[in-house]
Amino acid sequence: MKKRQRKCHFSTLFVYINESRRNRSDTSANLNNINAMLLLRRCHSLTRFGSLITQRHQVTPAVASCAARLCSSSSSSEDHRSHQRVHSLSWKHGLAGLLAGTGAVLAYGLHHHHKAERADIGVQTLKKSSSLPVFSQEEVTKHRSLEDGIWVTYKGGVYDITEFVAMHPGGDKIMLAAGGALEPFWALYAVHNQEHVLEILSDYKVGELNLEDLKKQQAVKSSDPYSSDPERHPVLRINSLKPFNAEPPPEILSDSYITPSAFFFKRNHLPVPQVDPASYQLHVEGLPGGVLTLSLEDLKTRFPKHTITATLQCAGNRRSEMNKVKLVKGLNWGIAAISNATWSGARLRDVLLAAGYKPDVAQWARHVQFEGLDTDVTGTTYGASVPLNKAVSEEGDVLLAYEMNGEDIPPDHGFPVRVVVPGTVGARNVKWLGKIIVSAEESSSHWQQNDYKGFSPGTDWDTVDFKSAPAIQELPIQSAITTPADSATIDRSDETLTVKGYAWSGGGREVVRVDVSLDGGKTWQVAQLRSGEKGQAPEPSPPPGRAWAWKLWEITAPLPPDAQELEIVCKAVDNSYNMQPDTVPPIWNLRGVLSNAWHRVKVKIREDEDEE
Amino acid sequence: MKKRQRKCHFSTLFVYINESRRNRSDTSANLNNINAMLLLRRCHSLTRFGSLITQRHQVTPAVASCAARLCSSSSSSEDHRSHQRVHSLSWKHGLAGLLAGTGAVLAYGLHHHHKAERADIGVQTLKKSSSLPVFSQEEVTKHRSLEDGIWVTYKGGVYDITEFVAMHPGGDKIMLAAGGALEPFWALYAVHNQEHVLEILSDYKVGELNLEDLKKQQAVKSSDPYSSDPERHPVLRINSLKPFNAEPPPEILSDSYITPSAFFFKRNHLPVPQVDPASYQLHVEGLPGGVLTLSLEDLKTRFPKHTITATLQCAGNRRSEMNKVKLVKGLNWGIAAISNATWSGARLRDVLLAAGYKPDVAQWARHVQFEGLDTDVTGTTYGASVPLNKAVSEEGDVLLAYEMNGEDIPPDHGFPVRVVVPGTVGARNVKWLGKIIVSAEESSSHWQQNDYKGFSPGTDWDTVDFKSAPAIQELPIQSAITTPADSATIDRSDETLTVKGYAWSGGGREVVRVDVSLDGGKTWQVAQLRSGEKGQAPEPSPPPGRAWAWKLWEITAPLPPDAQELEIVCKAVDNSYNMQPDTVPPIWNLRGVLSNAWHRVKVKIREDEDEE
Repeated sequence: MKKRQRKCHFSTLFVYINESRRNRSDTSANLNNINAMLLLRRCHSLTRFGSLITQRHQVTPAVASCAARLCSSSSSSEDHRSHQRVHSLSWKHGLAGLLAGTGAVLAYGLHHHHKAERADIGVQTLKKSSSLPVFSQEEVTKHRSLEDGIWVTYKGGVYDITEFVAMHPGGDKIMLAAGGALEPFWALYAVHNQEHVLEILSDYKVGELNLEDLKKQQAVKSSDPYSSDPERHPVLRINSLKPFNAEPPPEILSDSYITPSAFFFKRNHLPVPQVDPASYQLHVEGLPGGVLTLSLEDLKTRFPKHTITATLQCAGNRRSEMNKVKLVKGLNWGIAAISNATWSGARLRDVLLAAGYKPDVAQWARHVQFEGLDTDVTGTTYGASVPLNKAVSEEGDVLLAYEMNGEDIPPDHGFPVRVVVPGTVGARNVKWLGKIIVSAEESSSHWQQNDYKGFSPGTDWDTVDFKSAPAIQELPIQSAITTPADSATIDRSDETLTVKGYAWSGGGREVVRVDVSLDGGKTWQVAQLRSGEKGQAPEPSPPPGRAWAWKLWEITAPLPPDAQELEIVCKAVDNSYNMQPDTVPPIWNLRGVLSNAWHRVKVKIREDEDEE
Repeated sequence: MKKRQRKCHFSTLFVYINESRRNRSDTSANLNNINAMLLLRRCHSLTRFGSLITQRHQVTPAVASCAARLCSSSSSSEDHRSHQRVHSLSWKHGLAGLLAGTGAVLAYGLHHHHKAERADIGVQTLKKSSSLPVFSQEEVTKHRSLEDGIWVTYKGGVYDITEFVAMHPGGDKIMLAAGGALEPFWALYAVHNQEHVLEILSDYKVGELNLEDLKKQQAVKSSDPYSSDPERHPVLRINSLKPFNAEPPPEILSDSYITPSAFFFKRNHLPVPQVDPASYQLHVEGLPGGVLTLSLEDLKTRFPKHTITATLQCAGNRRSEMNKVKLVKGLNWGIAAISNATWSGARLRDVLLAAGYKPDVAQWARHVQFEGLDTDVTGTTYGASVPLNKAVSEEGDVLLAYEMNGEDIPPDHGFPVRVVVPGTVGARNVKWLGKIIVSAEESSSHWQQNDYKGFSPGTDWDTVDFKSAPAIQELPIQSAITTPADSATIDRSDETLTVKGYAWSGGGREVVRVDVSLDGGKTWQVAQLRSGEKGQAPEPSPPPGRAWAWKLWEITAPLPPDAQELEIVCKAVDNSYNMQPDTVPPIWNLRGVLSNAWHRVKVKIREDEDEE
């Protein structure tokens, strides 16, 4: 079968949210509105959604007007105009590319074929259509490439999704199912378990699987891979349940300098693997001495135990603020996808030396790759890499950690062993570590190559070239206000206002100052920094370039006498004097990462009433 | 003599510029206006100067109105009101502290005594007043502290400047002259050679020096210490002649990836010392093995020659943009106090190892101090320090450089040996290197302790605590537009516009992207980066964390069809994804350092006329 032509038009647009609980933030309110649009098919006004979302107050009317036209029929010429408008807005991939490897917000642009025999298929059920041919599994399996066509099966139906591949919100992960059944993947990515996803699929039906092969398929139990995920603390705000992604409420975050493990933000890409510590093995590969295999006991006894305090932050922390500018792809994190813990374990440097690392290795090796024990149904593991010089430097402090806050690392955080790469984006701190590979190349994983990179605000899914940007490693200067909450009300009789927050910078750069403004950035005051629990002695000052832990900050200022509303702003400075950018739109990027503009919170001042 | 009370009020305000040539930029125009205000004494409207300068179009009327009132007399009550207003604006030190160790813009707040016998002295000449007592040099020399009073002599007059010390625009350097003659210092800091400085001095006259001691003083020749400074290229824009500080025109800067030494920006703090390479000695101190002394020949033959390409940038680069917001202390640099060169020499690491450095030294040592051979009249040398880990790291690439761009380092750049600390602010790259000291402490020099530090925009000279901020080492992400120039005119018939500039980040962080906007920051395009001379192969990609050299960038874009004026903006991103702040006011600081907001240039589009 020759590669099909890619001419196509959109006639359907889906926006939905998965089953996760939602924050009570403004953004969530918007997303709830968006959620109300589930299954709004052929609603042309939705094609304007991209520009409307930039002015968030206009979203609700847009939804209403769209809902009113929900069931209006549309001629094919209208469909065509709609398509052109979408295309000119560069939404083709802008919508289709959302949400690779994540589970929260998903926008689907359904790709309709120009082929005459499909133009009027419309919504189909998944029931058998006796008019369609019957295929064997063997025939289906032959269709595993764009050249041969991409076929998949679902509940006995055979689907040719060749032309949908480029539109898949989850990116090229869809290719994992090529030539086989969708069920095990949909069990992994629960976001697919919604009615309209079946409707999209139905448009691509080309035949039936023969009964014998269907029975074989059904014999393979597809259990929920997330069923053994650990219990979590109910206070966490969940951004995605499967895989589990959640953050603590901001006001809890700044209560403790060391974040209790239960409250530490959780960012999983796959189900939590169950690892038996007794049989756990860590393989170290790529060095001249061959493979070194270590047990957990080896790690604990053969190498000095080293402890650091380090803050980890997700690349997507504060993504919700970018979503307010224009929808991005990714979990809708608030300001709390960052936490601080103590970590103990063997130094990666010591383990690499034991495995045969010598300085001449640096002549050909450039990276150290990590593979997790968390896998998808094909056995593909989570993976990432860091530069070799960070891994082997004494001052890099990279740990193979087996303790978090003085106890065994909890399952959600990588039991029994995770990498802690202090100063580096969370995504490289691989959990449930199974393998270390010293290499000339970066990790080839999706998350290293085609995710977790930053782009210009002018780059969209039509123009993005993931090879053009470096994988995020060190993160830039960051700070946020944890108290008061946005939209809080302050009593005039309080006379003063206390503002609290956190500040951190990547690369071991120490936060040296946090400026706070109560007037939207016109005037600034310097906050007090804290590097230890309140009332206790601060942590000792870190050596230069090794400030891995955040600072908590606080300032108490008189309430401005005439103001009825305050716009509280914070910005931090690190010891390389890097500053945060003022505003979000100029740093907006399609993946919604690196959101570190000044953090802004508005509060109202309630004038006192005569109560006495 | 008891310490005098510090109660005082301002009645006079001086703002002047030294004899340097001026840029043709907007800021210089303002400063020319300011220059017109020389000797505007008792002109109260000048006390509003601080707020007016923030809206630069209002400066000229303010000057005019002030000039009109130039010679109006003022009652003492008016003086008093004036003082209160100044004080409430926190100008007390704001004016007085300007320009320590530099030579360009200087604003004097003249301190009038409340003492009745001085209240009406007014402007005095320096002629002998027979009513004043005669002192011996011995008596003068006893007054060298705030406790005993600070006395100085000038051309036979004796002056008690105790109360002026805190007001001195040059900071505590004035104490160097305590108990002695001013002449040798004024020869060094030529900015004092202006009539109104003499007028200020006259207010403090307390007596005459006896004739015998005056003759002795005059026997000591006070020659111009700058007379042996080298010739410079006439294209340089001079910000200060003595000491010499100059930058190339921006459009020349981006012509060459490697800046020719003649065009490389020059930032001297003191006269250029004349060093005989044959007798040159470098002393390395502070290590267990005792002092190591090396000749130039030793440096060249005993250690491997190492070459790097590294950009140096003055902490005050782009200070003129901060001056537009509110006057700061320091040389009024444009955007070209940054240049790129190749540097060859011995690694500091290798020299320290030869001098006895071992890893256990790091248990007590934290810093490596450098002393230049450039001195003021007291023999105080220029000095700075860098963290020990930077100095001894193989990856730090710190050089004791004896070549610049393949030739002996020119006198203005440190002949015969300077330190090159790549990725670190220019001020730590000590020229004419005489001594290296491994130490537990930072350099105690003025430039390390009380200069070259960043503060919050809310910090003024009343509240600043230099101990509260770290000495600038690594610099933050930076970029600027070199072509077109601000206020340039573009012909509509050109159809396209080419924008060029540079981008660099400190700490070895590589510039990975430059975004350019033609509409003031609403939309952005990605510029092409270049890391070599045009048409030649680019420099090889640096190892991670060792990107010491800038990137030049360029973008050619169609002229927007309807625009009559363009606001061109650039912003760069480094590989830690640090971004530049959007605007200047929130990063404004009293010393005018670290000016790295988006760079903005406005150009006009000239519509075509019918010429054919």
